[in-house]
Amino acid sequence: MRVASIYEPVQADLDQVETTLDALKQIEFPWLREMMEHTLAPGGKRLRPTIALLAGRFGSYEPERLVPLAASIELLHTATLVHDDVIDQSETRRGRPTANARFRNAVAVMLGDYMFAHAANLICRTESLEVVKLFSRTLMSMASGELTQDMSAYEYGQDTMDYFHRIAGKTASLFATSAEGGALVAGAPEAWTAALHDYGENVGMAFQIADDVLDFTGDEAELGKPIGSDLMQGTLTLPSLLLMERDPNDNPVKKLFRNKRRQEHLAEAIALIRSSDILDQACAVARDFRERAVAALKPLPDTPARASLIEIADYVLERRS
Amino acid sequence: MRVASIYEPVQADLDQVETTLDALKQIEFPWLREMMEHTLAPGGKRLRPTIALLAGRFGSYEPERLVPLAASIELLHTATLVHDDVIDQSETRRGRPTANARFRNAVAVMLGDYMFAHAANLICRTESLEVVKLFSRTLMSMASGELTQDMSAYEYGQDTMDYFHRIAGKTASLFATSAEGGALVAGAPEAWTAALHDYGENVGMAFQIADDVLDFTGDEAELGKPIGSDLMQGTLTLPSLLLMERDPNDNPVKKLFRNKRRQEHLAEAIALIRSSDILDQACAVARDFRERAVAALKPLPDTPARASLIEIADYVLERRS
Repeated sequence: MRVASIYEPVQADLDQVETTLDALKQIEFPWLREMMEHTLAPGGKRLRPTIALLAGRFGSYEPERLVPLAASIELLHTATLVHDDVIDQSETRRGRPTANARFRNAVAVMLGDYMFAHAANLICRTESLEVVKLFSRTLMSMASGELTQDMSAYEYGQDTMDYFHRIAGKTASLFATSAEGGALVAGAPEAWTAALHDYGENVGMAFQIADDVLDFTGDEAELGKPIGSDLMQGTLTLPSLLLMERDPNDNPVKKLFRNKRRQEHLAEAIALIRSSDILDQACAVARDFRERAVAALKPLPDTPARASLIEIADYVLERRS
Repeated sequence: MRVASIYEPVQADLDQVETTLDALKQIEFPWLREMMEHTLAPGGKRLRPTIALLAGRFGSYEPERLVPLAASIELLHTATLVHDDVIDQSETRRGRPTANARFRNAVAVMLGDYMFAHAANLICRTESLEVVKLFSRTLMSMASGELTQDMSAYEYGQDTMDYFHRIAGKTASLFATSAEGGALVAGAPEAWTAALHDYGENVGMAFQIADDVLDFTGDEAELGKPIGSDLMQGTLTLPSLLLMERDPNDNPVKKLFRNKRRQEHLAEAIALIRSSDILDQACAVARDFRERAVAALKPLPDTPARASLIEIADYVLERRS
């Protein structure tokens, strides 16, 4: 689903982002080209590049620097997904085989590295060392977030604070950088740049929590992956953590993690979460981050770009896939 | 083996490079810390950071910007090795288990990404957008070189020109960037910067050819991997390509690649290469690149740093592991 009005203030330059990404797909190796076309297929929501371009509207809007920024962000995001799928041994993403499943791990590792290299190259085209630094800090946050997720798999000593910390690195940091980066490239006033950073961070948190709720409520066909796949992989997200907080001593998550192969504990945990008010509680937390995101925009002038940013904050809560 | 005189003009700052790398190993995850300590163990030859620091001697030598550059280069190099070992499914490197063998592919992919992120962060500490751009171009060359190597495995239509092109991207580009980057950070005169780039590129070519010869002549214990491992993996290097050029129609390399499992064809190819003058011929090509590297240094003043760079060019041909 695409909400056309979100994209309106920056549609022409989003098209340029697609053109930039398309150019990267022109590579001599047929395998790699197919994988680039597959993973960077148009039709994605392009939320992060859209946020970057919209943020650019709050300063001196220069497409020749903002488009490379936006394309770089999408590429970095995609590279991360490709490597995450190798790390998590995921076989499908959005109903399509992952790079590692379609080909093999080696190709997926190289594909991700190739995309990282191009992302680095594009970010330099912003001609801003400050933005490049922001990018490198984001890379570190994302790498640490992914590490923490993997290292804490099947660790039921975690709590919701660990979770928030982890998704702040893994997901929210790139949203924050999209908004802050756009503002920096455009030379927006400092207070607005800080406001956009906060907006991005909170939208990113809301996005990830909504994503983690969808893992329990979503339609398998629409999601393109089985329900409860996070839990199955040992990843504790907000709903499972809330379930464990509610009953620390006896709950199916612990049983599941103690006996990794027990499909019945997974089914029990999913059923418990779906039948209780835990998902409402998780959605309320996501809504709270959405509120903070919108509140962060207060200092900004009331423009179509600002309206689009608010629409994005609403959209991340409403999406179904 | 370390040749102390090579390091002399920059020894104090090389120690700072070690300190910088050591700081990165202080991470909370014991697995990751162990792997960082393992892959970034002191005692490596640190050729690339040494070249970067030596190149800095031809301008305004500022350790606070040159040390991060040198550390970033070593980190990028190591990250590449870690991912290459996943891609090639290598089990040992220098006689020690690789990250993927010691733990699992997921950890090695994350470790490499984590190192890439830190390399990006360190390179920004040079405060030079020009150097960051050079770095991003090098990342692309290296990613393409690795891709070409993987995609052309078991392809016996290659010739020596394909090989030179591939190792220029995979190996020589980072040597060139080490030298050029050091010169750029130090603000060396343009002609000297160009000379150092050429030096680095040619030393890198000599280094890789010598490495590929060692794969046939080296001592398995010293190399820490089996003789002929490139050929075994389908990677055609200069000696095998020269063998194929010599007798295009009937040679064991073709037989080997047509029947991947035939250990006897591998043994036959290795024996043929070792008993002929092919390795002398390959060494002559490496020496030729060494000559070009030294010739490139002609415009530079005759300083201890220049003498060390020449020593490095000699060392890459003489090393035994």
